[in-house]
Amino acid sequence: MEPGQNGNENKPIFDHTVLYNLDFSKSTTQYNPAVSVKDPGEGLCMRPLCRGDYDKGYMSLLSQMTKVGDVSREEFEARFSAMESCPDSYYIVVIEDVMTKKVIGSGTLVIEQKFIRKCSSRGRIEDVVVHNQYRGRQLVKLLMDTLMVLSYQLGCYKVSLESEDDRLIFYSQFGLIKEEGQNYMCRRFKEM
Amino acid sequence: MEPGQNGNENKPIFDHTVLYNLDFSKSTTQYNPAVSVKDPGEGLCMRPLCRGDYDKGYMSLLSQMTKVGDVSREEFEARFSAMESCPDSYYIVVIEDVMTKKVIGSGTLVIEQKFIRKCSSRGRIEDVVVHNQYRGRQLVKLLMDTLMVLSYQLGCYKVSLESEDDRLIFYSQFGLIKEEGQNYMCRRFKEM
Repeated sequence: MEPGQNGNENKPIFDHTVLYNLDFSKSTTQYNPAVSVKDPGEGLCMRPLCRGDYDKGYMSLLSQMTKVGDVSREEFEARFSAMESCPDSYYIVVIEDVMTKKVIGSGTLVIEQKFIRKCSSRGRIEDVVVHNQYRGRQLVKLLMDTLMVLSYQLGCYKVSLESEDDRLIFYSQFGLIKEEGQNYMCRRFKEM
Repeated sequence: MEPGQNGNENKPIFDHTVLYNLDFSKSTTQYNPAVSVKDPGEGLCMRPLCRGDYDKGYMSLLSQMTKVGDVSREEFEARFSAMESCPDSYYIVVIEDVMTKKVIGSGTLVIEQKFIRKCSSRGRIEDVVVHNQYRGRQLVKLLMDTLMVLSYQLGCYKVSLESEDDRLIFYSQFGLIKEEGQNYMCRRFKEM
Protein backbone atom coordinates (compact mmCIF):
# COMPACT_ATOMS: atom_id res chain seq x y z
CA MET A 1 0.00 0.00 0.00
CA GLU A 2 1.25 3.44 -0.87
CA PRO A 3 1.75 5.95 1.94
CA GLY A 4 -1.44 7.77 2.73
CA GLN A 5 -3.71 5.25 1.07
CA ASN A 6 -4.77 3.64 4.29
CA GLY A 7 -6.30 6.88 5.48
CA ASN A 8 -4.42 7.10 8.75
CA GLU A 9 -1.92 9.74 7.69
CA ASN A 10 -3.45 12.25 10.08
CA LYS A 11 -4.32 9.88 12.90
CA PRO A 12 -2.63 11.32 15.98
CA ILE A 13 -0.31 9.16 18.08
CA PHE A 14 -2.43 10.05 21.09
CA ASP A 15 -5.91 11.48 21.55
CA HIS A 16 -5.63 15.14 20.65
CA THR A 17 -8.39 16.11 23.08
CA VAL A 18 -5.96 15.22 25.87
CA LEU A 19 -3.64 17.91 24.54
CA TYR A 20 -6.28 20.56 23.92
CA ASN A 21 -8.00 20.03 27.28
CA LEU A 22 -4.89 20.47 29.42
CA ASP A 23 -5.38 22.77 32.39
CA PHE A 24 -2.49 25.23 32.61
CA SER A 25 -3.96 27.15 35.56
CA LYS A 26 -1.32 25.74 37.94
CA SER A 27 1.59 26.25 35.58
CA THR A 28 3.87 29.07 36.66
CA THR A 29 5.56 29.42 33.28
CA GLN A 30 5.51 32.98 31.99
CA TYR A 31 5.22 33.94 28.33
CA ASN A 32 5.79 37.28 26.67
CA PRO A 33 4.02 37.59 24.29
CA ALA A 34 1.39 35.04 25.25
CA VAL A 35 1.54 31.69 23.49
CA SER A 36 -0.43 28.55 24.23
CA VAL A 37 -1.17 25.05 22.97
CA LYS A 38 -4.04 26.38 20.91
CA ASP A 39 -2.09 29.41 19.74
CA PRO A 40 1.64 28.68 19.73
CA GLY A 41 2.42 31.68 17.53
CA GLU A 42 1.54 33.15 14.17
CA GLY A 43 1.26 30.53 11.46
CA LEU A 44 1.94 27.68 13.86
CA CYS A 45 -0.18 24.86 15.22
CA MET A 46 0.52 22.36 17.97
CA ARG A 47 -0.79 18.81 17.87
CA PRO A 48 0.15 15.17 18.42
CA LEU A 49 2.55 13.55 15.94
CA CYS A 50 0.94 11.69 13.05
CA ARG A 51 2.28 9.40 10.32
CA GLY A 52 2.09 12.19 7.74
CA ASP A 53 4.76 14.09 9.65
CA TYR A 54 7.35 11.89 7.98
CA ASP A 55 6.72 13.99 4.86
CA LYS A 56 6.78 17.20 6.86
CA GLY A 57 10.39 16.92 7.91
CA TYR A 58 9.99 15.32 11.33
CA MET A 59 13.11 13.17 11.04
CA SER A 60 15.10 16.08 9.67
CA LEU A 61 14.04 18.13 12.70
CA LEU A 62 15.19 15.38 15.07
CA SER A 63 18.55 15.34 13.28
CA GLN A 64 19.16 18.88 14.57
CA MET A 65 19.35 17.33 18.03
CA THR A 66 21.09 13.99 17.65
CA LYS A 67 21.96 11.18 15.27
CA VAL A 68 19.00 9.97 13.29
CA GLY A 69 20.36 8.04 10.30
CA ASP A 70 18.43 7.04 7.21
CA VAL A 71 14.91 6.01 8.09
CA SER A 72 12.56 4.98 5.29
CA ARG A 73 8.90 5.82 5.37
CA GLU A 74 8.16 2.13 6.00
CA GLU A 75 10.51 2.08 8.99
CA PHE A 76 8.99 5.27 10.33
CA GLU A 77 5.47 3.91 10.04
CA ALA A 78 6.48 0.61 11.62
CA ARG A 79 7.94 2.47 14.59
CA PHE A 80 4.89 4.72 14.81
CA SER A 81 2.65 1.65 14.87
CA ALA A 82 4.80 -0.03 17.50
CA MET A 83 4.48 3.04 19.72
CA GLU A 84 0.74 3.16 19.06
CA SER A 85 0.45 -0.45 20.16
CA CYS A 86 1.63 0.56 23.64
CA PRO A 87 -1.45 2.23 25.14
CA ASP A 88 -0.97 5.49 27.05
CA SER A 89 2.81 5.43 26.65
CA TYR A 90 4.04 7.74 23.88
CA TYR A 91 2.89 11.34 23.94
CA ILE A 92 4.72 13.05 21.10
CA VAL A 93 3.75 16.66 20.52
CA VAL A 94 4.75 18.59 17.42
CA ILE A 95 4.53 22.18 16.23
CA GLU A 96 3.88 22.68 12.54
CA ASP A 97 4.39 25.74 10.39
CA VAL A 98 1.09 25.59 8.54
CA MET A 99 2.34 27.67 5.63
CA THR A 100 5.41 25.60 4.83
CA LYS A 101 3.80 22.38 6.11
CA LYS A 102 6.95 21.57 8.04
CA VAL A 103 7.27 20.22 11.57
CA ILE A 104 9.45 22.78 13.31
CA GLY A 105 9.22 21.65 16.92
CA SER A 106 8.71 18.47 18.88
CA GLY A 107 8.86 17.01 22.35
CA THR A 108 8.04 13.61 23.81
CA LEU A 109 6.60 12.48 27.10
CA VAL A 110 7.13 8.78 27.66
CA ILE A 111 5.13 7.10 30.41
CA GLU A 112 6.62 4.21 32.36
CA GLN A 113 4.14 2.14 34.32
CA LYS A 114 5.23 1.14 37.80
CA PHE A 115 4.15 -1.24 40.56
CA ILE A 116 5.62 1.07 43.20
CA ARG A 117 3.76 4.11 44.51
CA LYS A 118 0.37 2.36 44.35
CA CYS A 119 0.93 1.22 40.78
CA SER A 120 1.69 4.76 39.70
CA SER A 121 3.38 6.01 36.58
CA ARG A 122 6.49 7.96 35.91
CA GLY A 123 7.01 10.42 33.11
CA ARG A 124 10.14 11.21 31.15
CA ILE A 125 10.59 14.16 28.87
CA GLU A 126 12.65 13.24 25.82
CA ASP A 127 13.79 14.65 22.52
CA VAL A 128 12.66 18.25 22.85
CA VAL A 129 13.80 20.19 19.81
CA VAL A 130 12.86 23.35 17.95
CA HIS A 131 14.10 24.09 14.43
CA ASN A 132 16.98 26.55 14.57
CA GLN A 133 15.09 29.04 12.38
CA TYR A 134 12.27 29.20 14.94
CA ARG A 135 14.31 29.87 18.06
CA GLY A 136 13.39 32.85 20.22
CA ARG A 137 9.68 32.23 19.89
CA GLN A 138 9.30 30.54 23.30
CA LEU A 139 8.59 27.22 21.63
CA VAL A 140 10.94 25.08 23.72
CA LYS A 141 9.38 26.67 26.77
CA LEU A 142 5.88 25.95 25.50
CA LEU A 143 6.76 22.35 24.66
CA MET A 144 8.35 21.79 28.07
CA ASP A 145 5.47 23.45 29.91
CA THR A 146 2.97 21.35 27.96
CA LEU A 147 4.75 18.06 28.64
CA MET A 148 5.10 18.92 32.34
CA VAL A 149 1.38 19.71 32.68
CA LEU A 150 0.55 16.61 30.67
CA SER A 151 2.62 14.35 32.91
CA TYR A 152 0.91 15.76 35.98
CA GLN A 153 -2.55 15.39 34.54
CA LEU A 154 -1.83 11.83 33.43
CA GLY A 155 -1.17 11.06 37.10
CA CYS A 156 2.59 10.61 37.09
CA TYR A 157 4.06 10.67 40.57
CA LYS A 158 7.16 12.24 39.08
CA VAL A 159 8.59 13.38 35.80
CA SER A 160 12.23 13.58 34.87
CA LEU A 161 14.55 14.82 32.20
CA GLU A 162 18.23 14.46 31.43
CA SER A 163 19.98 17.79 31.10
CA GLU A 164 23.33 19.17 30.12
CA ASP A 165 25.09 21.43 32.62
CA ASP A 166 24.30 24.64 30.79
CA ARG A 167 20.56 23.94 30.64
CA LEU A 168 20.00 23.30 34.35
CA ILE A 169 18.81 26.82 35.09
CA PHE A 170 16.52 26.92 32.07
CA TYR A 171 14.82 23.69 33.08
CA SER A 172 14.47 24.72 36.71
CA GLN A 173 11.65 27.08 35.69
CA PHE A 174 9.51 23.99 35.14
CA GLY A 175 10.10 22.76 38.68
CA LEU A 176 12.78 20.32 37.62
CA ILE A 177 15.59 20.06 40.11
CA LYS A 178 18.87 18.22 40.22
CA GLU A 179 18.41 16.12 43.31
CA GLU A 180 21.35 16.00 45.67
CA GLY A 181 23.30 12.78 45.39
CA GLN A 182 21.34 11.50 42.40
CA ASN A 183 23.22 10.76 39.23
CA TYR A 184 22.47 9.63 35.76
CA MET A 185 24.64 6.82 34.44
CA CYS A 186 24.70 5.51 30.94
CA ARG A 187 26.30 2.90 28.78
CA ARG A 188 26.32 3.38 25.04
CA PHE A 189 26.50 0.13 23.19
CA LYS A 190 27.42 1.24 19.73
CA GLU A 191 27.74 4.18 17.47
CA MET A 192 25.82 4.35 14.24
CA MET B 1 -13.20 -14.35 38.78
CA GLU B 2 -11.09 -15.45 41.73
CA PRO B 3 -7.33 -15.02 41.50
CA GLY B 4 -5.72 -17.95 39.81
CA GLN B 5 -8.90 -19.22 38.19
CA ASN B 6 -8.06 -17.83 34.80
CA GLY B 7 -5.01 -20.04 34.59
CA ASN B 8 -2.53 -17.28 33.87
CA GLU B 9 -0.98 -17.12 37.34
CA ASN B 10 2.31 -18.40 36.00
CA LYS B 11 2.28 -16.68 32.64
CA PRO B 12 5.53 -14.71 32.48
CA ILE B 13 5.47 -10.97 31.75
CA PHE B 14 7.92 -11.65 28.92
CA ASP B 15 8.97 -14.74 27.01
CA HIS B 16 11.16 -16.70 29.41
CA THR B 17 13.23 -18.16 26.58
CA VAL B 18 14.60 -14.64 26.03
CA LEU B 19 15.96 -14.78 29.56
CA TYR B 20 17.33 -18.31 29.41
CA ASN B 21 18.96 -17.85 26.00
CA LEU B 22 20.96 -14.75 26.90
CA ASP B 23 24.58 -14.90 25.79
CA PHE B 24 26.85 -13.80 28.63
CA SER B 25 30.07 -14.49 26.74
CA LYS B 26 30.80 -10.77 26.35
CA SER B 27 29.91 -9.87 29.91
CA THR B 28 32.95 -9.01 31.99
CA THR B 29 31.17 -9.40 35.33
CA GLN B 30 33.03 -11.72 37.69
CA TYR B 31 31.35 -14.04 40.20
CA ASN B 32 32.84 -15.96 43.07
CA PRO B 33 31.37 -18.50 43.55
CA ALA B 34 29.83 -18.86 40.10
CA VAL B 35 26.17 -17.91 39.75
CA SER B 36 24.10 -17.56 36.60
CA VAL B 37 20.57 -17.02 35.32
CA LYS B 38 19.98 -20.75 35.33
CA ASP B 39 21.68 -21.27 38.68
CA PRO B 40 21.48 -18.10 40.78
CA GLY B 41 22.36 -19.91 43.98
CA GLU B 42 21.22 -22.79 46.14
CA GLY B 43 17.46 -22.96 46.44
CA LEU B 44 16.93 -20.01 44.12
CA CYS B 45 15.49 -19.66 40.65
CA MET B 46 15.46 -16.70 38.29
CA ARG B 47 12.59 -16.05 35.90
CA PRO B 48 10.27 -13.34 34.54
CA LEU B 49 7.66 -11.86 36.87
CA CYS B 50 4.24 -13.49 36.77
CA ARG B 51 0.86 -12.62 38.31
CA GLY B 52 1.27 -15.23 41.02
CA ASP B 53 4.18 -13.27 42.43
CA TYR B 54 1.69 -11.02 44.14
CA ASP B 55 1.19 -13.90 46.60
CA LYS B 56 4.92 -14.48 46.84
CA GLY B 57 5.71 -11.15 48.41
CA TYR B 58 6.67 -9.17 45.34
CA MET B 59 5.16 -5.92 46.58
CA SER B 60 6.66 -6.41 50.02
CA LEU B 61 10.07 -6.83 48.39
CA LEU B 62 9.65 -3.58 46.45
CA SER B 63 8.77 -1.82 49.71
CA GLN B 64 12.34 -2.49 50.91
CA MET B 65 13.43 -0.05 48.20
CA THR B 66 10.81 2.69 48.06
CA LYS B 67 7.23 3.64 48.83
CA VAL B 68 4.76 1.09 47.60
CA GLY B 69 1.49 1.69 49.45
CA ASP B 70 -1.45 -0.68 49.65
CA VAL B 71 -1.98 -2.46 46.36
CA SER B 72 -4.80 -4.98 46.08
CA ARG B 73 -4.44 -8.11 44.02
CA GLU B 74 -6.88 -6.63 41.52
CA GLU B 75 -4.78 -3.49 41.18
CA PHE B 76 -1.63 -5.56 40.79
CA GLU B 77 -3.18 -7.70 38.08
CA ALA B 78 -4.55 -4.65 36.28
CA ARG B 79 -1.09 -3.10 36.24
CA PHE B 80 0.48 -6.39 35.15
CA SER B 81 -2.01 -6.58 32.27
CA ALA B 82 -1.37 -2.97 31.29
CA MET B 83 2.36 -3.69 31.10
CA GLU B 84 1.67 -6.87 29.12
CA SER B 85 -0.36 -4.87 26.65
CA CYS B 86 2.77 -2.90 25.73
CA PRO B 87 4.73 -5.34 23.56
CA ASP B 88 8.46 -5.70 24.17
CA SER B 89 8.51 -2.99 26.82
CA TYR B 90 8.57 -4.41 30.37
CA TYR B 91 11.23 -6.97 31.20
CA ILE B 92 10.84 -7.68 34.90
CA VAL B 93 13.11 -10.40 36.25
CA VAL B 94 12.63 -11.95 39.69
CA ILE B 95 14.55 -14.36 41.86
CA GLU B 96 12.47 -16.76 43.94
CA ASP B 97 13.43 -18.79 46.97
CA VAL B 98 11.81 -22.04 45.90
CA MET B 99 11.61 -23.41 49.45
CA THR B 100 9.80 -20.44 50.99
CA LYS B 101 8.08 -19.55 47.71
CA LYS B 102 9.00 -15.92 48.19
CA VAL B 103 10.29 -13.47 45.63
CA ILE B 104 13.57 -12.25 47.12
CA GLY B 105 15.04 -10.27 44.26
CA SER B 106 13.86 -8.26 41.29
CA GLY B 107 15.01 -5.88 38.60
CA THR B 108 13.31 -4.22 35.65
CA LEU B 109 14.48 -3.31 32.19
CA VAL B 110 12.09 -0.88 30.51
CA ILE B 111 12.43 -0.35 26.79
CA GLU B 112 11.64 3.03 25.25
CA GLN B 113 11.14 3.04 21.50
CA LYS B 114 12.73 5.91 19.62
CA PHE B 115 12.62 7.45 16.17
CA ILE B 116 16.21 8.65 16.53
CA ARG B 117 19.19 6.38 15.88
CA LYS B 118 17.46 4.62 13.00
CA CYS B 119 14.33 3.96 15.03
CA SER B 120 16.37 2.36 17.78
CA SER B 121 15.45 1.61 21.38
CA ARG B 122 16.77 2.75 24.68
CA GLY B 123 16.86 0.69 27.84
CA ARG B 124 16.46 1.81 31.42
CA ILE B 125 17.26 -0.28 34.45
CA GLU B 126 14.77 0.34 37.23
CA ASP B 127 13.80 -0.95 40.63
CA VAL B 128 16.64 -3.39 41.32
CA VAL B 129 16.23 -4.81 44.80
CA VAL B 130 17.31 -7.88 46.76
CA HIS B 131 15.70 -8.86 50.05
CA ASN B 132 17.90 -7.80 52.93
CA GLN B 133 18.19 -11.39 54.18
CA TYR B 134 19.71 -12.44 50.86
CA ARG B 135 22.43 -9.83 50.55
CA GLY B 136 26.01 -10.98 49.98
CA ARG B 137 24.98 -13.63 47.49
CA GLN B 138 25.89 -11.58 44.40
CA LEU B 139 22.24 -11.28 43.46
CA VAL B 140 22.18 -7.55 42.73
CA LYS B 141 25.23 -8.12 40.58
CA LEU B 142 23.54 -11.00 38.77
CA LEU B 143 20.35 -9.00 38.23
CA MET B 144 22.29 -6.00 36.92
CA ASP B 145 24.48 -8.14 34.67
CA THR B 146 21.40 -9.90 33.29
CA LEU B 147 19.53 -6.68 32.56
CA MET B 148 22.60 -5.16 30.90
CA VAL B 149 23.07 -8.19 28.63
CA LEU B 150 19.35 -8.24 27.94
CA SER B 151 19.29 -4.58 26.89
CA TYR B 152 22.20 -5.18 24.53
CA GLN B 153 20.66 -8.26 22.99
CA LEU B 154 17.33 -6.51 22.55
CA GLY B 155 19.18 -4.00 20.37
CA CYS B 156 19.18 -0.94 22.61
CA TYR B 157 21.62 1.71 21.45
CA LYS B 158 22.13 2.62 25.08
CA VAL B 159 21.00 1.67 28.54
CA SER B 160 20.88 3.92 31.56
CA LEU B 161 20.30 3.89 35.27
CA GLU B 162 19.87 6.48 37.96
CA SER B 163 22.30 6.05 40.79
CA GLU B 164 23.02 7.50 44.18
CA ASP B 165 26.52 8.86 44.80
CA ASP B 166 27.69 5.92 46.88
CA ARG B 167 26.71 3.36 44.22
CA LEU B 168 28.58 4.91 41.29
CA ILE B 169 31.61 2.66 41.66
CA PHE B 170 29.53 -0.47 42.07
CA TYR B 171 27.57 0.23 38.90
CA SER B 172 30.67 1.11 36.90
CA GLN B 173 31.56 -2.61 36.76
CA PHE B 174 28.66 -2.99 34.32
CA GLY B 175 30.09 -0.39 31.97
CA LEU B 176 27.79 2.34 33.26
CA ILE B 177 29.48 5.70 33.44
CA LYS B 178 28.46 9.11 34.68
CA GLU B 179 28.83 11.16 31.54
CA GLU B 180 30.55 14.50 31.94
CA GLY B 181 28.13 17.39 31.92
CA GLN B 182 25.03 15.20 31.91
CA ASN B 183 22.60 15.54 34.76
CA TYR B 184 19.42 13.95 35.90
CA MET B 185 16.64 16.33 36.85
CA CYS B 186 13.39 15.43 38.44
CA ARG B 187 10.16 16.92 39.64
CA ARG B 188 8.09 15.04 42.17
CA PHE B 189 4.43 15.91 41.96
CA LYS B 190 3.14 14.51 45.18
CA GLU B 191 3.92 12.34 48.10
CA MET B 192 1.80 9.33 48.89
